[in-house]
Amino acid sequence: MAYQLHYWPTIQGRGEFVRLALEAAGADYVDVARLPASQGGGESALGRRLGDPDNPRAAFAPPFLIDGDIVVGQTAAILLYLGPKLGLAGIGESDGLCTHQLQLTIADAVAEAHDTHHPISTGDYYEDQRDAAVQRARAFREARIPKFLSWFEQVLQRNPSGDLHLVGDVLTYADLSLFQLVDGLQYAFPKAAARALAATPSVVKLHANIRRRQRVHDYLQSPRRIAFNEDGIFRRYVELDG
Amino acid sequence: MAYQLHYWPTIQGRGEFVRLALEAAGADYVDVARLPASQGGGESALGRRLGDPDNPRAAFAPPFLIDGDIVVGQTAAILLYLGPKLGLAGIGESDGLCTHQLQLTIADAVAEAHDTHHPISTGDYYEDQRDAAVQRARAFREARIPKFLSWFEQVLQRNPSGDLHLVGDVLTYADLSLFQLVDGLQYAFPKAAARALAATPSVVKLHANIRRRQRVHDYLQSPRRIAFNEDGIFRRYVELDG
Repeated sequence: MAYQLHYWPTIQGRGEFVRLALEAAGADYVDVARLPASQGGGESALGRRLGDPDNPRAAFAPPFLIDGDIVVGQTAAILLYLGPKLGLAGIGESDGLCTHQLQLTIADAVAEAHDTHHPISTGDYYEDQRDAAVQRARAFREARIPKFLSWFEQVLQRNPSGDLHLVGDVLTYADLSLFQLVDGLQYAFPKAAARALAATPSVVKLHANIRRRQRVHDYLQSPRRIAFNEDGIFRRYVELDG
Repeated sequence: MAYQLHYWPTIQGRGEFVRLALEAAGADYVDVARLPASQGGGESALGRRLGDPDNPRAAFAPPFLIDGDIVVGQTAAILLYLGPKLGLAGIGESDGLCTHQLQLTIADAVAEAHDTHHPISTGDYYEDQRDAAVQRARAFREARIPKFLSWFEQVLQRNPSGDLHLVGDVLTYADLSLFQLVDGLQYAFPKAAARALAATPSVVKLHANIRRRQRVHDYLQSPRRIAFNEDGIFRRYVELDG
């Protein structure tokens, strides 16, 4: 049975970290909400599933994954589940745990990137919180982007197996997620990301290596890869970069 | 060997979720930074360990846990590791995954609670971002606290094993963490938390049940439980409640 991924059909968002893992592993999956409505796709069907009163384990928010009897929400928990099945969780307990720790730190960076355009309320429009967004984005650009990226650089540099991967010498979901974080920062904050990445050559190399992996390359060229846009987490607002 | 927990010695913070799991299980652990400096305690020793260039897996931030060869950071990853060892991860893969998913949703709520007093920059003082904090706290009180608590209420109500636990009919680290989230909200937002909790009776019952468990009760009465204070995540600023 194909994995069923349930996520907003028009953005990369948090679902993209799951899509990338499934694509990089060549897994059989259905991106359910992107199907035509006649086949169960669309945002309203997604909303109905999320609110399904018969599902005792409905997730707090998309993404969630269905695999037979397993229903699991929260991006990092989905990757925790998929990781060993897709061969993307490193080798052994210690590396699996390290991979997950890295994923959670990437998730923290992603949440902070989101809050640059929604520093006051996720329920209000960006335009109604732009002044605070400008302030928060400045702190994110000047302090947080360099701090996160230099920490990932350190992890790569200190990897006893070399700086090609975050954990050991195999591809993990953390590598794929770091690719996506860097991709998103380059989209949303082209100037600030370029400055920070100039000091993190191993992160730059990892990003380039992931991009040229055959399955990832094919995915990124395909219509399955949704373009970055201003409904997602990484948004390009010129006033937030600098 | 006792587990070594490394976390800021003067706040509950994110370390408290780990402390509660260790205490509720009666585990042998050392809260290293709370030892006297002569025994390796104190904030500066914590900072040195975090920055240790010989540690290939130094965490991004406290808390981190050391257990023999295992060094793991990120609160939820620490609990993922400790859960099965402490008997706090539910029974079977599906329940373990569900427990972790719940922990990650609690972590999201905790991060949002933190950002009510630091909506612009974690590097600046609260007083320098109070205006934005007042706005963000209003959205958190009016939309987010009710949304999170009502979701946890739903999880409890829909649990086929009854509403005494979030997962199955055994204590998990998610139960303990929900206790801590509720405790923190009651401290920081006494009025708003009371309003939201009036609609979530099963959450209120879980909080009370956890509090009266013998080991948790003993811990909360002991000097090992640091009091809530305005250096932590949950801060009582009268202008942020209402």
